[in-house]
Amino acid sequence: MNPDADPAVPEAPRPSGAPAPTPSRRPSRRTVIVGAAAVAGAGGLAVAATSAETSQAAPAAAVTDWEACLATARAILVRDDEDRPLVPRYADILLKSGLPRSRRPGKKVLIVGAGPAGLTAAHLLREAGHRVTVIEANANRVGGRIKTFRTGGHENAAQPFADPKQYAEAGAMRIPDSHPLVTGLMDGLGLKRRRFHLVDVDGAGRPAHRTWIYVNGIRVRRADYARAPQTLNRSFGVPRPYESVPAAQIVRTAFAPVRKEIEGKQDRALVEGWARIIQRYGHMSMYRFLMEEAGLDERTVDLIGTVENLTSRLHLAFVHSFIGASLISPDTAFYELPDGTATLADALYARVKDLVRLDRRATRITHGEGRATVETVSEGRGGSPVRRETFTADTAIVTVPFSGLRHIPISPALSYGKRRAITELHYDAATKVLLEFSRRWWEFDEADWKRELEAVRPGLYRRYQTGQTPADGTLLGAHSSVPKGHVSPAQRSHYAACRGVTRDQPEAAGVIGGGSATDNPNRFMFQPSHPVEGSAGGVILAAYSWSDDALKWDSLDDEERYPRALAGVQEVFGQRIEVFYTGVGRTQSWMRDPYAYGEASVLLPGQHTELFPHVGKAEGSLHFAGCHTSIKPAWIEGALESAVRTALEVHMA
Amino acid sequence: MNPDADPAVPEAPRPSGAPAPTPSRRPSRRTVIVGAAAVAGAGGLAVAATSAETSQAAPAAAVTDWEACLATARAILVRDDEDRPLVPRYADILLKSGLPRSRRPGKKVLIVGAGPAGLTAAHLLREAGHRVTVIEANANRVGGRIKTFRTGGHENAAQPFADPKQYAEAGAMRIPDSHPLVTGLMDGLGLKRRRFHLVDVDGAGRPAHRTWIYVNGIRVRRADYARAPQTLNRSFGVPRPYESVPAAQIVRTAFAPVRKEIEGKQDRALVEGWARIIQRYGHMSMYRFLMEEAGLDERTVDLIGTVENLTSRLHLAFVHSFIGASLISPDTAFYELPDGTATLADALYARVKDLVRLDRRATRITHGEGRATVETVSEGRGGSPVRRETFTADTAIVTVPFSGLRHIPISPALSYGKRRAITELHYDAATKVLLEFSRRWWEFDEADWKRELEAVRPGLYRRYQTGQTPADGTLLGAHSSVPKGHVSPAQRSHYAACRGVTRDQPEAAGVIGGGSATDNPNRFMFQPSHPVEGSAGGVILAAYSWSDDALKWDSLDDEERYPRALAGVQEVFGQRIEVFYTGVGRTQSWMRDPYAYGEASVLLPGQHTELFPHVGKAEGSLHFAGCHTSIKPAWIEGALESAVRTALEVHMA
Repeated sequence: MNPDADPAVPEAPRPSGAPAPTPSRRPSRRTVIVGAAAVAGAGGLAVAATSAETSQAAPAAAVTDWEACLATARAILVRDDEDRPLVPRYADILLKSGLPRSRRPGKKVLIVGAGPAGLTAAHLLREAGHRVTVIEANANRVGGRIKTFRTGGHENAAQPFADPKQYAEAGAMRIPDSHPLVTGLMDGLGLKRRRFHLVDVDGAGRPAHRTWIYVNGIRVRRADYARAPQTLNRSFGVPRPYESVPAAQIVRTAFAPVRKEIEGKQDRALVEGWARIIQRYGHMSMYRFLMEEAGLDERTVDLIGTVENLTSRLHLAFVHSFIGASLISPDTAFYELPDGTATLADALYARVKDLVRLDRRATRITHGEGRATVETVSEGRGGSPVRRETFTADTAIVTVPFSGLRHIPISPALSYGKRRAITELHYDAATKVLLEFSRRWWEFDEADWKRELEAVRPGLYRRYQTGQTPADGTLLGAHSSVPKGHVSPAQRSHYAACRGVTRDQPEAAGVIGGGSATDNPNRFMFQPSHPVEGSAGGVILAAYSWSDDALKWDSLDDEERYPRALAGVQEVFGQRIEVFYTGVGRTQSWMRDPYAYGEASVLLPGQHTELFPHVGKAEGSLHFAGCHTSIKPAWIEGALESAVRTALEVHMA
Repeated sequence: MNPDADPAVPEAPRPSGAPAPTPSRRPSRRTVIVGAAAVAGAGGLAVAATSAETSQAAPAAAVTDWEACLATARAILVRDDEDRPLVPRYADILLKSGLPRSRRPGKKVLIVGAGPAGLTAAHLLREAGHRVTVIEANANRVGGRIKTFRTGGHENAAQPFADPKQYAEAGAMRIPDSHPLVTGLMDGLGLKRRRFHLVDVDGAGRPAHRTWIYVNGIRVRRADYARAPQTLNRSFGVPRPYESVPAAQIVRTAFAPVRKEIEGKQDRALVEGWARIIQRYGHMSMYRFLMEEAGLDERTVDLIGTVENLTSRLHLAFVHSFIGASLISPDTAFYELPDGTATLADALYARVKDLVRLDRRATRITHGEGRATVETVSEGRGGSPVRRETFTADTAIVTVPFSGLRHIPISPALSYGKRRAITELHYDAATKVLLEFSRRWWEFDEADWKRELEAVRPGLYRRYQTGQTPADGTLLGAHSSVPKGHVSPAQRSHYAACRGVTRDQPEAAGVIGGGSATDNPNRFMFQPSHPVEGSAGGVILAAYSWSDDALKWDSLDDEERYPRALAGVQEVFGQRIEVFYTGVGRTQSWMRDPYAYGEASVLLPGQHTELFPHVGKAEGSLHFAGCHTSIKPAWIEGALESAVRTALEVHMA
């Protein structure tokens, strides 16, 4: 297992005096090389500022393992190089005082991308006396992956659903209370937030855990599964010791030794705890962690992957899902904004609207000492010509996701580390399929169902109960509350051709908010946490899928996707929900979004140490912001951290 | 690192008498469980034939590690359960004798999918006296991932390029001579094959290795790199011992200990050698193998990943790329078909055309003892209504990729193992971007260039040499050989806005066939191996990309994608090639293909043992064919193996 079996590839060098490799959990050659380099004094995180044309990249060992782990740990904790928390300072700048006063003359600053990072940095820099321009690829919308399907708004959107009052989130939909910058910003902007129910609640707002798990043909309420997991667990064939342990607890137990590295720790000990996690597990996929570190078997991994939403990202970095699972848990309080998260984009936009140039997509960047030039094109869709425009400034903040930046030539070439990060940083797919209903049937009890179904047609309640209703789509949208004309003949045909024909009708769900998990293609479903004022209906997130699961939904035509998404929901909740289906759905594939190219950077094993330290580093007159430069990809908080960081970089330079 | 730190999750069971876990390269709990199960006598590969509604899945340990490794090894070698080679028997059936004579009455057989597997199985079964129907989702084409952009053909395609004689491969493009079924079939069908030059050749047909490698801003011919790799290797910052070793040799050396398991071995020893490879490395990604087993550092992995095309699939199974790298090497002879690989689809189709029903997409499968029913829809595109039709038969062969099968309800539910395989089998993206030129400029020498450029405009040759030509797209298609009217204004704008402006003009390439590698988004480029008769032009595969690299190309509009692909080729070959660009490109994204959902099944770490044994197994009246049921995904040979296997299964049942 050793390349030096071939004499052409000799042993990696170990300078005299370098410690011999010690046995470790990760007994790789890599450790040896790294150790040697550390001894040679080539520590630190300096990125080799090479232009490919003129010089060579620094040798591999210039980035030491432990230093990279510390750097990533600091990024996770948002600490500076001396382990001091940055968030209080960021919060002060963002929410109160603005950037520090400076006697330096204002700069001409170009910001590429009008997502939350770009809009926020623009406001901070303008307030501090800089001349700012923001360019945005979209012709009619800012906000990036904050996007609400709604009528009107700053983007003047056409009505997305049959009920003009209805709206639903295409992107960011839940704000954890552990994110102080975004919650503080919402409060400061006067946006009233309310609870987002990750777990369904009862009428009094208490967690009820009544949503369904439906896997391997077994349907069980979450609370019942937690009490008696045996039947469902056995359907995966898990070994006996796991038969009686709920999936969430298996995950918690598997993660416990990792959490022990950080629990109860503070300051430097906390930084070092995270650094040890990165060093020990940073090169592992979640699959490897669960199989080899946690000692689980493939069936138990399949159980927790299916129920706890790990399967589609098992091959990606353990660290990503570990952080995510710590955050998105039933213990976290989440918030949402009435009228949609896009009201936050509206508010951020309102502050800097005069600075933003829409319909300007960056196509080429040149940079130099105190100079940055960005060429752009217009979208040129719908028959209008493609217009070009060039913007120049003293400095630029680039917020474009690296998935998109990959296709933007930058000259002179950036450092080796940055180029590699732009090329290799993994972006993952996520797709949301939304369906509109004329009633919030998930809140019904059986009496509600009986009343509403009998109103459609006497005896219909009983016919659904006994599986005697037609499966040909004739009952799609049959309730009188459904506005006519949205269920197309093609949808009816596809529905009839792929229908679930779930003849067993479970009892009424009776849930407010929360979500269900299933092994059918829909995977995860979420009900709205609150009614939309003035509407008896609601839009559910019928399928929230990631990675491979998402790409499969992307391959379907709309007219086929919505009936299939409906069939998946019916498999969980029963066929009768079809009478309230309005025929209107919306889909957001972030992988197919022409400017996002993915939901977010979800790193591959090893990328937290190999690539991440290069992602956010400024190079000459170019600064890099966006959630991918934080360890909170896909979260607004990460975008805001990067906005303050880069605004400071530009302001203090 | 141990779940039983929590008292709720006790130690995995180890029956008395079970061997204690022995130290190994893979000291995981999993090994213990598997060992225990093997002792308990639950060996064998039996798939738990559970219907989810009625029973539980078999316990995890029912599939023993070593048996699964042997099964996968046999699949790699195409051996039966007693290690006897199956290919001679398959070849006899496919190429000579047909299915064995049988006194049983003919069956009614439904084949889902008219790719090479479905078309071949249909022919064999009809010849053996069965009544066969083939349904195909495409309204106008058979062949699956055999697809040629061409004029006419069985699909009656509209002219794809400016020159009506030109064609290019969207899918299968090279047939290795180590694949006896497909080469034998082409010969038997009277299709004349000729060499496909994976490595460029000189005028006498000898390998020349003159194509370019262009990475980190360094451009070097392959032969020169092999002689003196230092400059390029140093640009990655590889450790000194690797500075003088060409990337291909580093890979060969890294793989050598693995190859040793099988080299020179035959029969049972060979099967066991492969099984050991699967057992030892089957759970590893290529990244993990290179870092931990081969002991490489991240910079060397980046070097070989970039030059040898491993980067985008580093997170996928080592086994997949190991087999692929063994196959696609400069030592393998490849063939192609004049007029395109689709002529093979034409020939397979001609034999069974009367059996094939186009425009019938499977949407739902029901099955039972001696009965299989498949419901279908028509595409319903371009305003025509969606028509439904139901097909019934005694038995069905399903060739649909599992990526597509995931959205087809099957009742009663298939076994746990099959359902899991359908859900989780990873399909990878691959995208080809093709560009047409009016001359085969890659074959030019400098005298050719001088003559042709001076004919465009006196002095132009020198102006390109010195980087003084306009970069605004005015010279796109400027040569008189380019038919007018194909370079749109939008393409010119996008070209000008993103142009590479590569001012250094390398010497004329002077290559026939072969391909170049670059770290720009194009990644891999291939020139045609042979001229198209009657045409002075040619179509190059300007960008052949996989995985994340491919998804980024998919996000661009056509009018933007072609100028960017051209700019990537220009970065390698120089700006002057633009005068021959016809303005016409074609793109094949297999991930966006509505019926392929990916290039092929490229398995994740662990899937070769966890999922693969379940992929091809028949369940009741349903049989499963297609390249994903073989260990040759993406290869026609794998599809043909599966065609003969399933035809035999149906015929002998």
